Amino acid sequence: MAGHDSTIYRSSTTAPVNIAVIKYWGKRDETLNLPTNSSLSVTLSQADLRAHTTASCSDSYPHAQGDTLTLNGTPQDIRASKRTLACLSDLRILRRALEDANPSLPRLSAFPLRIVSENNFPTAAGLASSAAGFAALVRAVADLYELPQSPSELSRIARQGSGSACRSLMGGYVAWRAGSKGDGSDSIAEQVAPAGHWPEMRALILVVSAAKKDVPSTKGMQSTFTTSTLFPTRAKSIVPERMAAMETAIRNWDFKSFAEITMRDSNNFHATCLDTWPPIFYINDVSRAAINLVHEVNRIAGKAICAYTFDAGPNAVIYYLEKDSMQVLGTFRQILKPETEGWGGVEPVRDLMDGLMATSTGSMEKLAAGVNRVILTGVGEGPEKVKNHLVSETGEILIGSGN
Amino acid sequence: MAGHDSTIYRSSTTAPVNIAVIKYWGKRDETLNLPTNSSLSVTLSQADLRAHTTASCSDSYPHAQGDTLTLNGTPQDIRASKRTLACLSDLRILRRALEDANPSLPRLSAFPLRIVSENNFPTAAGLASSAAGFAALVRAVADLYELPQSPSELSRIARQGSGSACRSLMGGYVAWRAGSKGDGSDSIAEQVAPAGHWPEMRALILVVSAAKKDVPSTKGMQSTFTTSTLFPTRAKSIVPERMAAMETAIRNWDFKSFAEITMRDSNNFHATCLDTWPPIFYINDVSRAAINLVHEVNRIAGKAICAYTFDAGPNAVIYYLEKDSMQVLGTFRQILKPETEGWGGVEPVRDLMDGLMATSTGSMEKLAAGVNRVILTGVGEGPEKVKNHLVSETGEILIGSGN
Repeated sequence: MAGHDSTIYRSSTTAPVNIAVIKYWGKRDETLNLPTNSSLSVTLSQADLRAHTTASCSDSYPHAQGDTLTLNGTPQDIRASKRTLACLSDLRILRRALEDANPSLPRLSAFPLRIVSENNFPTAAGLASSAAGFAALVRAVADLYELPQSPSELSRIARQGSGSACRSLMGGYVAWRAGSKGDGSDSIAEQVAPAGHWPEMRALILVVSAAKKDVPSTKGMQSTFTTSTLFPTRAKSIVPERMAAMETAIRNWDFKSFAEITMRDSNNFHATCLDTWPPIFYINDVSRAAINLVHEVNRIAGKAICAYTFDAGPNAVIYYLEKDSMQVLGTFRQILKPETEGWGGVEPVRDLMDGLMATSTGSMEKLAAGVNRVILTGVGEGPEKVKNHLVSETGEILIGSGN
Repeated sequence: MAGHDSTIYRSSTTAPVNIAVIKYWGKRDETLNLPTNSSLSVTLSQADLRAHTTASCSDSYPHAQGDTLTLNGTPQDIRASKRTLACLSDLRILRRALEDANPSLPRLSAFPLRIVSENNFPTAAGLASSAAGFAALVRAVADLYELPQSPSELSRIARQGSGSACRSLMGGYVAWRAGSKGDGSDSIAEQVAPAGHWPEMRALILVVSAAKKDVPSTKGMQSTFTTSTLFPTRAKSIVPERMAAMETAIRNWDFKSFAEITMRDSNNFHATCLDTWPPIFYINDVSRAAINLVHEVNRIAGKAICAYTFDAGPNAVIYYLEKDSMQVLGTFRQILKPETEGWGGVEPVRDLMDGLMATSTGSMEKLAAGVNRVILTGVGEGPEKVKNHLVSETGEILIGSGN
């Protein structure tokens, strides 16, 4: 076949999870994943939680089969995922524009894609992996296609895969501007500060096993948007004020304000869930125990040394600063069961225990009973290009290759 | 002593509990107990829950000791209770006006009061008794003083004892108008409809034992008023709309609307508690299980046959109509432990159980584990004058006399 190119083109990336401190909840446009309000997150280190994705394409891949996606070893029905199709379509359009401008480039946009992705999240941790997954997918294909677009420009595409994925294209402290345009062109992520600006930010994740499957966030946020009488106030006035205050707090390394805004925004978001009809509950009595203990720890410590936040599930993410590691981690190590997984070398610290025992034995018992695993992590960098490919030089899918 | 009157004047009353369907939460004036928003409640039958109070006065009671109050057999320090003093002072002023206009009346306003009160609430039920208590106190003294004021006029006085007490001065369906005047003169209770208008309204109370003492409502509502970013929306726009809709629902015997407004308003109120800083939690996982089950029961029944509401604590009050008694009570009887107290002759009903078991086994187990007692009651009448006095003809305090 004249001009046939049998090269296997490959590019691989890892991408991080992010945990919002100002929450995204509610879409003004479902297809484009345009949010009702801006949000802000901390990108977490990929040493602990990451998606690893290889995008490859070749004219030698069966054209009839089209694009394929293998996720954690399982082939996905890509045609059933409008969100994945939307991302790949937009990336191909950008590649085609490059090819049209420079006919010497290989016509990668015409080749089937073979995408393989894995993540290293603890199973049953109930951590949302879609943000990291879609960020890795978009980043890997953009690298494969050698697209010149910036992470903010690519965030428009990743957003269509999963709203919060747009924030995982950058490291550090990232804002997703809601934007106001109908086509979503101004609904993009921007880095507020790189990880290196405030590298001392750490996160302790308390993995709470939920007995019941939660309402999926896409369905939940639509229901809140449609039925909650309090939600418009949150979207229109509360969040915009908090975005500004949070950016100032981050710029000024002001953990006290960071902590209060983070906790208040988590509570505010879950309040609108409770106000949804019928009501949605993501936090349970174990989550409440974590909330009570964080407030008590801060009270006894005499200042805010830790701050909770909860996504659409009962897991607590507790932000704190490196300098308070011993006290924060040691206290929770002391509170939780000795056999809790994930502590590494953290030693129990009893400094605050007398105070906690005076007020919070119920919360301590509840938390210990409900948490079997913790994850220790911290602020981290954005997606990283890696040489460890999940597709071989000859196009075979490689599973579990050193992830 | 010339003109000395050694008569023991006595009047006794019982007064009911009320459970709001549009919640009172937040004071615009703490001293006068003026609320930020109107509220609406159902007065519950005194056959099940009531305060019983005797007000007596006599020139022969020791003047130096002043007024006395004995509550459930325990003498209270009346001087430490500004709220009680405010009620008694206002009642005395009204009596004095009568005496001034008609000098032939005995000068009761100058005599020390001896007030004795008891209630028949199950101990540890965690049911707010202050509404019934202050309503009975005000009604008994007003009767003793032979005051001509209407229940609405007296509600201004009872409100100063405990906000929700003003709604316990009337039977049936009672609105407390927030009013707008600074002196509170337009902040009064009004009967929306007598019990006889819609006598079929019933209530099942699920008594949920709370491990932890809740934040007292006076403190909690002040904290919500001061710190919640969502509360102003509730007070200014959500509640006024719901008051109008609820009054229409009651006038039209529209249980579907009554149920939805009741449940949404309870959720909305608890959402503002969660949005309080630091957050306040009154409902727990057992309460959540009751919420989920009410929604599931209604879904499986194909219409709203029951509606939950929660005050400042985890107990569920479930309203339903007499015609649905067998299904509502029988289903909860089936769900709860067989040894649960308070069911009387209610038989388990299995009609809805297959449906519930398909979706809600977790909630059923949670509810059964957390509820040891139920109270069956329904809409009832306002305070009733009774001849059963808790003070003898000679002025002695009688305790436990047939309450």
